[in-house]
Amino acid sequence: MPPRSARITAIETHDIRFPTSRELDGSDAMSPDPDHSAAYVTLHTSADGEPDGHGLAFTIGRGNDVQVAAIRALAPYVVGRDADELAADPGTLYRDLTGDSQLRWLGPEKGVMHMAIGAVVNAAWDLAARRAGKPLWRLLADADPEWLLSQVDFRYLTDALTPAEALDLLRRGKEGSAERAAELRAHGYPAYSASPGWLGYSDAKLTRLAERAVAEGFPQIKLKVGADIDDDIRRLRVARAAVGPDVRIAIDANQRWDVDDAIAWVNALREFDPYWIEEPTSPDDVLGHAAIREAVAPVKVATGEHAPNRVIVKQLLQARAIDIVQLDAARVAGVNDNLAILLLAAKHGVPVCPHAGGVGLCELVQHLAMFDQVALSGTTEGRVLEYVDHLHEHFLDPARVVSGRYQAPSTPGFSAAMRPTTLAEYAYPDGEFWAAELAPREVPGT
Amino acid sequence: MPPRSARITAIETHDIRFPTSRELDGSDAMSPDPDHSAAYVTLHTSADGEPDGHGLAFTIGRGNDVQVAAIRALAPYVVGRDADELAADPGTLYRDLTGDSQLRWLGPEKGVMHMAIGAVVNAAWDLAARRAGKPLWRLLADADPEWLLSQVDFRYLTDALTPAEALDLLRRGKEGSAERAAELRAHGYPAYSASPGWLGYSDAKLTRLAERAVAEGFPQIKLKVGADIDDDIRRLRVARAAVGPDVRIAIDANQRWDVDDAIAWVNALREFDPYWIEEPTSPDDVLGHAAIREAVAPVKVATGEHAPNRVIVKQLLQARAIDIVQLDAARVAGVNDNLAILLLAAKHGVPVCPHAGGVGLCELVQHLAMFDQVALSGTTEGRVLEYVDHLHEHFLDPARVVSGRYQAPSTPGFSAAMRPTTLAEYAYPDGEFWAAELAPREVPGT
Repeated sequence: MPPRSARITAIETHDIRFPTSRELDGSDAMSPDPDHSAAYVTLHTSADGEPDGHGLAFTIGRGNDVQVAAIRALAPYVVGRDADELAADPGTLYRDLTGDSQLRWLGPEKGVMHMAIGAVVNAAWDLAARRAGKPLWRLLADADPEWLLSQVDFRYLTDALTPAEALDLLRRGKEGSAERAAELRAHGYPAYSASPGWLGYSDAKLTRLAERAVAEGFPQIKLKVGADIDDDIRRLRVARAAVGPDVRIAIDANQRWDVDDAIAWVNALREFDPYWIEEPTSPDDVLGHAAIREAVAPVKVATGEHAPNRVIVKQLLQARAIDIVQLDAARVAGVNDNLAILLLAAKHGVPVCPHAGGVGLCELVQHLAMFDQVALSGTTEGRVLEYVDHLHEHFLDPARVVSGRYQAPSTPGFSAAMRPTTLAEYAYPDGEFWAAELAPREVPGT
Repeated sequence: MPPRSARITAIETHDIRFPTSRELDGSDAMSPDPDHSAAYVTLHTSADGEPDGHGLAFTIGRGNDVQVAAIRALAPYVVGRDADELAADPGTLYRDLTGDSQLRWLGPEKGVMHMAIGAVVNAAWDLAARRAGKPLWRLLADADPEWLLSQVDFRYLTDALTPAEALDLLRRGKEGSAERAAELRAHGYPAYSASPGWLGYSDAKLTRLAERAVAEGFPQIKLKVGADIDDDIRRLRVARAAVGPDVRIAIDANQRWDVDDAIAWVNALREFDPYWIEEPTSPDDVLGHAAIREAVAPVKVATGEHAPNRVIVKQLLQARAIDIVQLDAARVAGVNDNLAILLLAAKHGVPVCPHAGGVGLCELVQHLAMFDQVALSGTTEGRVLEYVDHLHEHFLDPARVVSGRYQAPSTPGFSAAMRPTTLAEYAYPDGEFWAAELAPREVPGT
């Protein structure tokens, strides 16, 4: 009898929430009190010694239960699959999920259902990389261009990028990739620090964290803006004084403005030499970003962390609406969608500087940026990868930044696996932390 | 003691699914086997004799449970509200839900969470109209322009429509509205029939239903296209032969094509004089629709049933990408979002021909079209409202079409309430129909 191959036996989900709103970590003009959270998924396999696959959707608190419910609804599409086949071609799972005619109605390709598909598809890629014994960035960088091409969904893209053009980009990316992989392993990937600039921090905390970021070697920091113009002028002045003239300061409005407000506000901050304005308005507003970009140049316009799918990114590039693509590892339908986005950016010559603020996003997205450097765009010129120094302790293979540079992961997988103790402590509402937190308080004397 | 006012005491939800895939009702190029479904919500009030409020999100089967879970997650935002205050200002609920910083992350303003908000907000409008003793279209048409303006969220819209412009449109819409309301009540609102054209129907059934539509007085029918060009040529020929040269034939690709495919396909069907091409490509592709419109004129381009929010609709109008706005009553965040969309369309002089194919959509959207006629655009010129003759028997106040025209509802409310017997029979998976359907079959002799 031939050996039975491993199968996916179960999808296990966890509603994990961290009480980050207590310290105003993550606070911005649209999210004053986020509790960074993950709808966390594990694909279990049947065979002893076979690795599991891990993925997550990032949310900021309420609604994380709905995100978990959406992931659970995908179980029938995953359970029973042959693990060898899944690892050899995650694109089939991607297509089965994004192409399901009934589920598609719930987007199409956006919001809760699309993020759920992203978590499951990314878990399949984690499984594939673990089985291959490689970190995901290397699995991608080592892959044949033809195989990578087969993982990309070109539906709705061909007016901007044809499969033949994509294959050409992938083949050119392969030239010299071994040298660039060695360089990446030796020197890491350039990062910037978003830790100093959360909106809820005092000027003293901003100064201290900005100075620390410079001392740690970051070439760029980021400040949240958009709640109050006078506060922003003061905070930009404080930050510029702290970092000096040579460290770049990006600013991030988290979708706060209408088009005209964005233009006026950014131009009012111009004296502090902001490097980019991030998410000036609705993430869906292609034409709005184009108008803003024209009016605030040379300040660059960046967006993408909330771009719901590759079709919006395509248009942002077609309309020359942005200078920087901020892809997110967990917003779209996983690695497959992000390969399309990386290819669209490469075709248009626009650098990718990924979003990585939330739980696990640094861990995930580093792999995509590193693949881009090693085997697609072939450069880190004009590229920096966001880093926020929080919640990494909950991961088994945490992102590591040394002297302002991400160190290339060497552990097999997509770095998405959380520690079992974290699952036990921060599961909502029954984990140890939340059970204690949500229990009725005993009031002395009553 | 003053009388206690009514409060919202509970949100009740039902996962209602109809087995429409058995007859291929609703089948199109992207949805070969839809089971038309509703995530149905009732807002209960505390006082005896006070009406409840009803709303729904429409889906096509799988994932309807996730849609229900998203509606349930909104209960804390609704339960406990004063019913008088809610009815006097549904916009406050709309803003609390769309503006919640944590829930917003799950969109923003798109997908499952946005549709859940739409169901709940529409239930609040149903409640408001019932308490006012008016059908919703009349509640809106009778309202002061200033109050209607207060119900609109202008965030992200002001580069295309300012509050002052909107107020002017609403004031002008009010002129002559009493005469138009009388005309509407006497003659109804023009409809078109989408019943003949589902993709899964035989040519004989298509001919029979197309002839019947003409006999019933519809000035327009619609055919699904996009699966196979030879089939489409044959079906268009059959349909044109059945309806003659004067009845309009709209065609609907349900997002099947890339931009270049859409242009080639529509032009290949040109000899049959299609009136509009509906959803030629991704609903998010503003620039794609603009390119298609330029290349297929004078065939009109229509989309909007899957436009996730008012920001995408704004851009479709700014880019002159469409000839017809197909708003949907249950895709965006309820009446408030649709007031914004009606105002955007009025500002740009583009007619609104709403989408109404699914469960309850005819019932809901007729109110919006009728308000538009009576008190905003002031005309039915170039406007037709979709009608599909199925599933109306499940509603307490079903849409009524006579001689090709929707009859103005006179019962108070938003016509969203389903029959109790329907809830008992089609609740999934435990209602009578599904319990019998899903039970293990007894196999004789085993």
